Amino acid sequence: MTNKSFVSVLLMVCSISVSARQIESTKVLLRQHHLMPVPASIHFLPGRLAINASFAVAVDGHTDARLEAYIHRASRRLEGRTGFEFTRGAATDPQQATLLVQCKGPGSSVPSVRDDESYSLDVSEKQALLKAVTVVGALRGIETFLQLLEGDRQGYFIPAVTITDKPRFPWRGLLIDAGRHFEPVEVIKRNLDAMAAVKLNVLHWHLTEDQGFRIESKRYPTLHQLGSDGLYYTQDQVREIIAYAGDRGIRVMPEFDMPGHATSWLVAKPELGSAPGPYKIERKNGIFEPAFDPTREELYKFLEGFFAEMAQLFRDEYMHIGGDENEGHQWNKNPKIQAFMKEKGIKDNHALQAYFNQHLSKILVRLGKKMIGWDEILHPDLPKDTVIHSWRGPASLAEAARKGYDGILSAGFYIDLMYPTWQHYKIDPVASDNTLSESELAHILGGEATMWGEWVSPETIDSRIWPRTAAIAERLWSPASVTDVDDMYRRLDAVSLELEELGLTHEKNVDMMLRRLARTKEIGPLKTLLSVVEPVKQYHRSQTHPATMLSPLTRLIDAATPDSRAAREFSELVDGLLSDAPRFRQNKDTIKAVLMQWRDVRPALDVLIDQSPILREAEQLPKDLLEIGNAGLEAMSYLDADIPPPVDWRTSRLAMLEQASKPKAEVEFAIVKPMRNLIILAAEMPALKSVPVSQWKQRVLTLAEEKKQ
Amino acid sequence: MTNKSFVSVLLMVCSISVSARQIESTKVLLRQHHLMPVPASIHFLPGRLAINASFAVAVDGHTDARLEAYIHRASRRLEGRTGFEFTRGAATDPQQATLLVQCKGPGSSVPSVRDDESYSLDVSEKQALLKAVTVVGALRGIETFLQLLEGDRQGYFIPAVTITDKPRFPWRGLLIDAGRHFEPVEVIKRNLDAMAAVKLNVLHWHLTEDQGFRIESKRYPTLHQLGSDGLYYTQDQVREIIAYAGDRGIRVMPEFDMPGHATSWLVAKPELGSAPGPYKIERKNGIFEPAFDPTREELYKFLEGFFAEMAQLFRDEYMHIGGDENEGHQWNKNPKIQAFMKEKGIKDNHALQAYFNQHLSKILVRLGKKMIGWDEILHPDLPKDTVIHSWRGPASLAEAARKGYDGILSAGFYIDLMYPTWQHYKIDPVASDNTLSESELAHILGGEATMWGEWVSPETIDSRIWPRTAAIAERLWSPASVTDVDDMYRRLDAVSLELEELGLTHEKNVDMMLRRLARTKEIGPLKTLLSVVEPVKQYHRSQTHPATMLSPLTRLIDAATPDSRAAREFSELVDGLLSDAPRFRQNKDTIKAVLMQWRDVRPALDVLIDQSPILREAEQLPKDLLEIGNAGLEAMSYLDADIPPPVDWRTSRLAMLEQASKPKAEVEFAIVKPMRNLIILAAEMPALKSVPVSQWKQRVLTLAEEKKQ
Repeated sequence: MTNKSFVSVLLMVCSISVSARQIESTKVLLRQHHLMPVPASIHFLPGRLAINASFAVAVDGHTDARLEAYIHRASRRLEGRTGFEFTRGAATDPQQATLLVQCKGPGSSVPSVRDDESYSLDVSEKQALLKAVTVVGALRGIETFLQLLEGDRQGYFIPAVTITDKPRFPWRGLLIDAGRHFEPVEVIKRNLDAMAAVKLNVLHWHLTEDQGFRIESKRYPTLHQLGSDGLYYTQDQVREIIAYAGDRGIRVMPEFDMPGHATSWLVAKPELGSAPGPYKIERKNGIFEPAFDPTREELYKFLEGFFAEMAQLFRDEYMHIGGDENEGHQWNKNPKIQAFMKEKGIKDNHALQAYFNQHLSKILVRLGKKMIGWDEILHPDLPKDTVIHSWRGPASLAEAARKGYDGILSAGFYIDLMYPTWQHYKIDPVASDNTLSESELAHILGGEATMWGEWVSPETIDSRIWPRTAAIAERLWSPASVTDVDDMYRRLDAVSLELEELGLTHEKNVDMMLRRLARTKEIGPLKTLLSVVEPVKQYHRSQTHPATMLSPLTRLIDAATPDSRAAREFSELVDGLLSDAPRFRQNKDTIKAVLMQWRDVRPALDVLIDQSPILREAEQLPKDLLEIGNAGLEAMSYLDADIPPPVDWRTSRLAMLEQASKPKAEVEFAIVKPMRNLIILAAEMPALKSVPVSQWKQRVLTLAEEKKQ
Repeated sequence: MTNKSFVSVLLMVCSISVSARQIESTKVLLRQHHLMPVPASIHFLPGRLAINASFAVAVDGHTDARLEAYIHRASRRLEGRTGFEFTRGAATDPQQATLLVQCKGPGSSVPSVRDDESYSLDVSEKQALLKAVTVVGALRGIETFLQLLEGDRQGYFIPAVTITDKPRFPWRGLLIDAGRHFEPVEVIKRNLDAMAAVKLNVLHWHLTEDQGFRIESKRYPTLHQLGSDGLYYTQDQVREIIAYAGDRGIRVMPEFDMPGHATSWLVAKPELGSAPGPYKIERKNGIFEPAFDPTREELYKFLEGFFAEMAQLFRDEYMHIGGDENEGHQWNKNPKIQAFMKEKGIKDNHALQAYFNQHLSKILVRLGKKMIGWDEILHPDLPKDTVIHSWRGPASLAEAARKGYDGILSAGFYIDLMYPTWQHYKIDPVASDNTLSESELAHILGGEATMWGEWVSPETIDSRIWPRTAAIAERLWSPASVTDVDDMYRRLDAVSLELEELGLTHEKNVDMMLRRLARTKEIGPLKTLLSVVEPVKQYHRSQTHPATMLSPLTRLIDAATPDSRAAREFSELVDGLLSDAPRFRQNKDTIKAVLMQWRDVRPALDVLIDQSPILREAEQLPKDLLEIGNAGLEAMSYLDADIPPPVDWRTSRLAMLEQASKPKAEVEFAIVKPMRNLIILAAEMPALKSVPVSQWKQRVLTLAEEKKQ
């Protein structure tokens, strides 16, 4: 990050008040923190609170088992980072405590969307004082406290600071799809810990899919017995997860997707389907036809029984009924359903789904639950107390709000699509140019990152969720004005490491998977390759390599992570070079060193690929990387010597880049754009000399962008 | 490994039959495998069995749920390594199956020390045929099959081979001490998976200690309620672990250590102690006084009740009663106990413990269990059906055998002491110079690696157990003649990586811990340092840095692993150099490159240490490493130039090395010995010229060894 952006970040995220007396402390006040999400208000002050072996926490006012257990865990994390052994138990004298927690009351007994999560944190040289109205607010403040830890030659400390904080949106969720791939209890638990660390407060647990029915039903046991391959959560485990989440101030909202996405239900209950069975658990990915038959009374009896059981198990006031991607093919083909629609005057499938949803809504109302479903459920007949979950975008959310529906956003937060963090970060549930009234705005409750489960295993899911979801968490918690991308990435690096102390595997499983792929501990060359590729984005996976839900997720694409840091760094290096017209010396040596590494890694990679047939699909990549490295080094030579490249150089190198940019082994190079800039720059040098130096960079970027089309 | 040792390994571990017709296939026959443990008999043949997407397993003869589940899991592991998706379920035509398992019968319903674990594996180009008498034998053979997987340009394959295999000892265990530090269920489970992978068959579960009572007692619930800090296994979890182990052919033997090591029991039951209470859970490490009072009848009533409950829970026929390290201080100080001894004619504490053990033995006999305990329980009054668990050594085991007791060895297998693998590998339960008769030898049942829990957390325990324990597993399974250390290390590297597919964290948690220590992802410099240090050995930990069972185990010593690979490699490099007298060119450049890396890493490390106070305790290490690197480079210069070093060079450099070799931050350099050799070599060059070249190496080694004294 340049100094300029550093200062702009500080101006943006901190409101700094500098008095004459504090002038000498300016360095401290302009402190770079790595809080994520950024608090609503933060003022750094001179001074610091030492963290040493005498660290102790006291609670003043309300306390309870949840708060004390959270403090206990936080203290252990602090011990792990600092190496100190603290005295166990609360400090005997609150005034002597390092951290004093003043909590007014317990808040709701079950986490709720109305929870007061606000807190304030005042750190002086003597003590950190955390104040909150509810225990949940205190938990949020404790996470902020932990993120404030710094260290230097004098030891560990928390900088003196005044923070007043509360979330922008009350609904900040992570959807985990355990339907397509089952995720064991420990995966859910460690992700709940990570969620709490970045102040997310809803686990949206997608429990049923065409590919799996993942929850024990004591009332209809054949559902999980036949629909899950034995991979489901027992009700004891569900209660364990709910309690675990509740201890962290996190709601657990289940989703039972219907009337489509229902294949796995119909394995046990073919009679509820809109076409005759038998049904088998779906193994492919995609959108499938099986759907409940909304014309049958038995269906609603069954659903009443099923939801009654689930309503008792799940304590959250919301019940997600899915409702997405039901294309109605089975309905169209079923004469009885067609006759029913004619008889009732139901004009199309959307109306038939609305008919189904009205029934569902009544069932849920009777059970004391609020209904929430995806965009498609929005229909004039939908009861107004239903919540719309938008995968279409802020516009559809605004439309729902105008009609009086609460809504949450997931469009733009589809982390399964492998887009870089900055793309999610720029999405806002409330468009800045919205024309909603205050009361309409209040309907927009927040959003959820969605970890759809087609291509994630317990081994890889963490690296698909984290650290990118921390940036989404910030979007949903922090003021809308917090938008500096460079600063977000800087803080994301720090938060990502801190998540590891909670057992998250997003960092450590990458090398493990590379060792398995390469059959050796010497994975340096493979790491070089992996650092500059990303998994293919959007829904492109499996288009070239047919795969099912039973395919092993242990290939190069599974080890690869989205949002290549090396590519981002290379891009910054080339940007720096471009900005240094006409001499082009900035970053020159570093760029050359990087390019040489890319050029030279091929022989070592070839050896690895030869001994590991699983890597054979990637054998073109080292060749491409060599070509990319060569082309870049050529460009640097022309720039160095200030001579124009041969007449066909530009065309041939861009053609090479075009070839290299095509996905192989379902990964793609993330360095294509800066490479294109570099090639265009070298090729355009003679032409650039006829325009003012100040225009060179923009001209190169424009030409490169055109070339991309 | 040199070619010489390669050939000697093959001659040792494989009995190779080469016919005239097979001459052209010699390359295949001299195949390097990475099986661990090495089978009793192995013959490689020409040809290979391809492993591709059509891989399938069939079972012929006996089958059951356990075998099928094991095959299912093995198939998923093979999928993970190869990237293929296999068709689920058994092959429809056994003759078409890639792997055909022929199993005669189920074997015992509960894993037993008498289980037949033998199997044979015949791999041809058409099929792999695995034959076993019992399911457990088949499970062992499946692991061998998985270890045989290789890959090259033609794809994955299993080399054609004929293996006949069975264990040398029937009792091959791993002790996990969950008393001093609790280890959650998932830690136990993943270690059971690893045990099965290297054919270990006993989990010795050390469940009670001064520092924790780790199992739920429904009969005496205050035991776990007051003695565990809430960290204990529920009986449901115990049953889950036993079933999990049983599915892998592993016995689960609990240990309830008594009459000493009993503090945590006495928190709830002070009346059973030999001194008045109250007692508190012990937090320190060491040997403590609290012991049961063997003179009280109530004690035996209590123990009868307790063991009755545990005997029902644990299905294994053995019950371990500890019996170690009871120094009798409480007994000496208790006048009632002294009076009792006088009255009964019990002459000393050892006899009093025998009196206690006789009572215990009767209780266990009534419950249908065999008693096993540590060395100390050996006493003329001890019933002959007791098993002696030796921490003293093969001699005490032989003594017990001569007296007619069964025994197992753990002396030499104390993996908590951080010794290198080769030291454990050379230990044998049966000394080669033993004078035991055949029937006496039969009393020696095997051995156990002991993971004592003073300094392990769930984060670090795997790296203390693995991969070293795989070599101990080989000692207990393979023929006594399998002793080649270089070959063991080569195979250990491969097995260590394969254990990761089971979720073991011994490799991946190291970098994670370094990232936490350094507060950055850029841990390269720290890895350089860590690669050449080892945790202090034996019981030296905590002697300089006071610590308790509540101290965080997140320091440099916790990230450090025993048996430095880099040090071993450096040692081999210097050995090569020494062997290349008088020119000393072999490995010269590599040695210099390594020494320069050591010399140059200090500035980067200093930066990391400055921002991470937890690393401050290690700040001398980069300085030492710089000095070591410098001294080595000086030695190389003198050798290069063939000039003698200045007169005081040798003394000053050896003094430096002496200083550097002292533990700091409880880690120590593992490169001291080869460095000493290098310094002596450079210093002795003038003197060496007067003796024959062939004697140079030995002379240097002798002088270096003397210098060490």
